[in-house]
Amino acid sequence: MKIAVFPGDGIGPEVTREAVRVLQALDLPELTLFEGDVGAIAYRRHGRPLPDETLEMARAADAVLFGAVGDPSCDGLERHLRPEQAILGLRADLGLFANLRPATTFAGLEGMSALRPEIAAAIDLLIVRELNGDVYFGDKGTRRLDDGQRQGWDMMAYAEDEVRRIAHLAFRAAQGRKGQLVSVDKANVLETSQLWRDVVGEVAADYPDVALEHMYVDNAAMQLVRDPGRFDVIVTGNLFGDILSDQASMCVGSIGLLASASLGQRETAFGTFGLYEPIHGSAPDIAGQGRANPMATILSAAMMLRHSFGREDDAARIESAVARALADGVRGGDLGGDAGTGAIGDAVLERL
Amino acid sequence: MKIAVFPGDGIGPEVTREAVRVLQALDLPELTLFEGDVGAIAYRRHGRPLPDETLEMARAADAVLFGAVGDPSCDGLERHLRPEQAILGLRADLGLFANLRPATTFAGLEGMSALRPEIAAAIDLLIVRELNGDVYFGDKGTRRLDDGQRQGWDMMAYAEDEVRRIAHLAFRAAQGRKGQLVSVDKANVLETSQLWRDVVGEVAADYPDVALEHMYVDNAAMQLVRDPGRFDVIVTGNLFGDILSDQASMCVGSIGLLASASLGQRETAFGTFGLYEPIHGSAPDIAGQGRANPMATILSAAMMLRHSFGREDDAARIESAVARALADGVRGGDLGGDAGTGAIGDAVLERL
Ligand SMILES: CC(C)[C@H](C(=O)O)[C@@H](O)C(=O)O
Ligand SMILES: CC(C)[C@H](C(=O)O)[C@@H](O)C(=O)O
Repeated sequence: MKIAVFPGDGIGPEVTREAVRVLQALDLPELTLFEGDVGAIAYRRHGRPLPDETLEMARAADAVLFGAVGDPSCDGLERHLRPEQAILGLRADLGLFANLRPATTFAGLEGMSALRPEIAAAIDLLIVRELNGDVYFGDKGTRRLDDGQRQGWDMMAYAEDEVRRIAHLAFRAAQGRKGQLVSVDKANVLETSQLWRDVVGEVAADYPDVALEHMYVDNAAMQLVRDPGRFDVIVTGNLFGDILSDQASMCVGSIGLLASASLGQRETAFGTFGLYEPIHGSAPDIAGQGRANPMATILSAAMMLRHSFGREDDAARIESAVARALADGVRGGDLGGDAGTGAIGDAVLERL
Repeated sequence: MKIAVFPGDGIGPEVTREAVRVLQALDLPELTLFEGDVGAIAYRRHGRPLPDETLEMARAADAVLFGAVGDPSCDGLERHLRPEQAILGLRADLGLFANLRPATTFAGLEGMSALRPEIAAAIDLLIVRELNGDVYFGDKGTRRLDDGQRQGWDMMAYAEDEVRRIAHLAFRAAQGRKGQLVSVDKANVLETSQLWRDVVGEVAADYPDVALEHMYVDNAAMQLVRDPGRFDVIVTGNLFGDILSDQASMCVGSIGLLASASLGQRETAFGTFGLYEPIHGSAPDIAGQGRANPMATILSAAMMLRHSFGREDDAARIESAVARALADGVRGGDLGGDAGTGAIGDAVLERL
C-alpha cells in the first residue's frame, strides 16, 4: 500500500501529520509512505508549485493524501506559478475526474451552522463534481479586439464521454444512498449544459431504481439554503460544483470536519486510485501554531481506505472514532473549543 | 411617462395588475401605459416568446414593468422558442447591462429565513450583476468530435469596456451606501476573471472613498451563508451573478418581497431607461388563484420611479407603504399568511 503524502502549505503539514499517525496506528499491511512537495513550499524549493518529482511520486502511488496549498506571498506570481496550480495539475495529470464531497451535519454540532439548527440537522448529502473538464480546462487567453481593448476568454465545453462517466459514478453513488439524484446545470442558457442534461438523461435508463431530477444552478443555490435536507446526491460540472460544494460545506457549519475524495480511472491492486484532501484551505493565519483541527484530514484518510484500498472496516473505525471524540466534547478552535492539533489527533487515536 | 407593461405568464398578470394600480394611484403627470405579450403567452399568440411588437413597445417606452415568464407546457420546445428567451432577448436588445438586486431583511420577517434570525436580520446588501456579456451571450453550439461523440460548448468572455461600465456603476452604488464593494470572480482559474479583476482594480482608482475587496466565487458562496451581513455591494459577472443573487435572495427568506432593476445606457427625458421585475418566477402552481403576493412587483415599480423617473419621493412612499403593511401583519401565502393578491394591493394603496 503506497501512499504519497503531500502536506503543502500553511496548516497542511500539521493536519496531515495527525492523519498519518492514524493510518500508522491501524497496522495496515505493507504500508509505505512517501512525502512530496506541492504548492508554495514546492515553488520556493523547486521553482514550481508541482515539481516533476512530486508528479512521479503520485503516479507511482496507490493513493495521495493532500494537505492544503496557498500562501499570500504568492499572490503576485504569474498564474502558472501559483500554489493552486499544483492541485489543478494533479487533477489533470492523474485523470482525477470525480470529486466526491459528502456534507453531513455531525450530531451535536447543529448549532455551528448559520442555518437554523433543525434545517442544518437534516443535511446529509453528497456532491459529485466533475473535475477534469468544463471551463477549467478549455482553451483560454487574453486578446486584443479590433478597437484595441483587451478581452479575456475561456472556452467552456463537455463531451458526451466526460458527462457519461461522471453520471454513471453519481447514479451508483445514489444507489448506495437514498436513490435520489439531482443533476445541476444551466441548460436554459448553455449548450454545454444542454448536452450535460441530455447525456445524464440517457444514462438514467441504466438506473431505474434512482429518481433523477434536473435543476438549474440558480435554483440549486437557493434550495441549498432553503432546504438542504431535500438533497441526497447532487451531480454537476466542474464550475458549478466548485461553487455549490463550498456553499453546501458552509451550510453544515463545521468546514474543519469535511473530507473529500478525487477519484481517477486507474485501478490499482487494491481499489481505485484517488487523491484525498480536507475541504478547508491552508489557513495561513493560524499556520504553525498547533491550533488547526486535523479531523477533516483524518476523515479524508478514512475515505482513502474506503475508495482506494477497499478497507471499509478501517474507514468506519476512523469515522466512528472521530464521531465519538466529537460526542465526548473534543473541539478544535474552529468549533469554539481549545483542543490543539496534536490533542485532537491523540483523542481520535485513543478511540480507534 | 411611458411605461410598457409585460405581465407574461403564470402569476405575472395578477402581480403586475396590483403594481399598476399603485402607479396609477400616485397621480403621476402624463402617465401612459402600454401592454405587451412576452413568454409562453406570446408564443401561443404570436409563435414567438418575444414578438417584434413587444420589442418595439419596449424601445418606445421610458421604462418596462415585467411580470414573470415560464410555463411547463413549453418545456419541450426548442431553446429559441422557450419563454426565458423573452427576458434574455430584452436584455440584449435593450442593452440592459446592469442588474441591481437589493436583498434586505424586512423588520419582523427575520424568522422567515432558513438562516438563524440574528444572521438573517443583518442582511442589507445589493448585488450588481453584469447582464449583457459572459458565457450567456458568447458563441455556443454542439459539434461532433473526430471520434464521433457530441460536445457542447459555450464561449465565456469579457472585454475591458464591459467590465469598466458595470464597475463604475457598482462603485457609485457603494458610494451611496456603506462604501464597501466586493468584486466576485474566479481569477485563479479563468482568464475572463483575471481581466475582470484587473479592470475593476483600475476603476477603483477613481473611487478612493470605496473599499474594494476581490473574492473568489466559491468563497463568496460560503460567506453568503456564513455571514451575509458582512456584504454591502457585490459586483460580479452574468453567470456568477445569476447564482449568487438567487442565493442571497433566499437568505433573506421572503423571495416574494424582492425587487430588481435592469438598467441600460439610454437616457430618457426622465432618467435611465430600465426594466423592472420581481425576483420570483411565474409560479404556475398558484397562477390565476389570486394567491400570489404582489409586493415584489410593487417594490419593482418603486425602483422604476427611482431609477427611470427620478422620483425618489414617490419611490420612498411606496416602499414605506409596503413596510407598514408588513408591520401591520399583512401577509401573503408566501409568508405563511392568507392575504390574497388584491387584498395586499388594497393594503398598500390604503397606506400610500
Ligand atoms: C484552488 C482552486 C483552483 C480549486 C478549484 O476551483 O477547483 C478549489 O477552489 C477547489 O475547489 O478545490
Ligand atoms: C431565466 C434565466 C435565463 C435567467 C438568467 O439566468 O439570467 C434568470 O435565472 C434570471 O436570473 O433572470
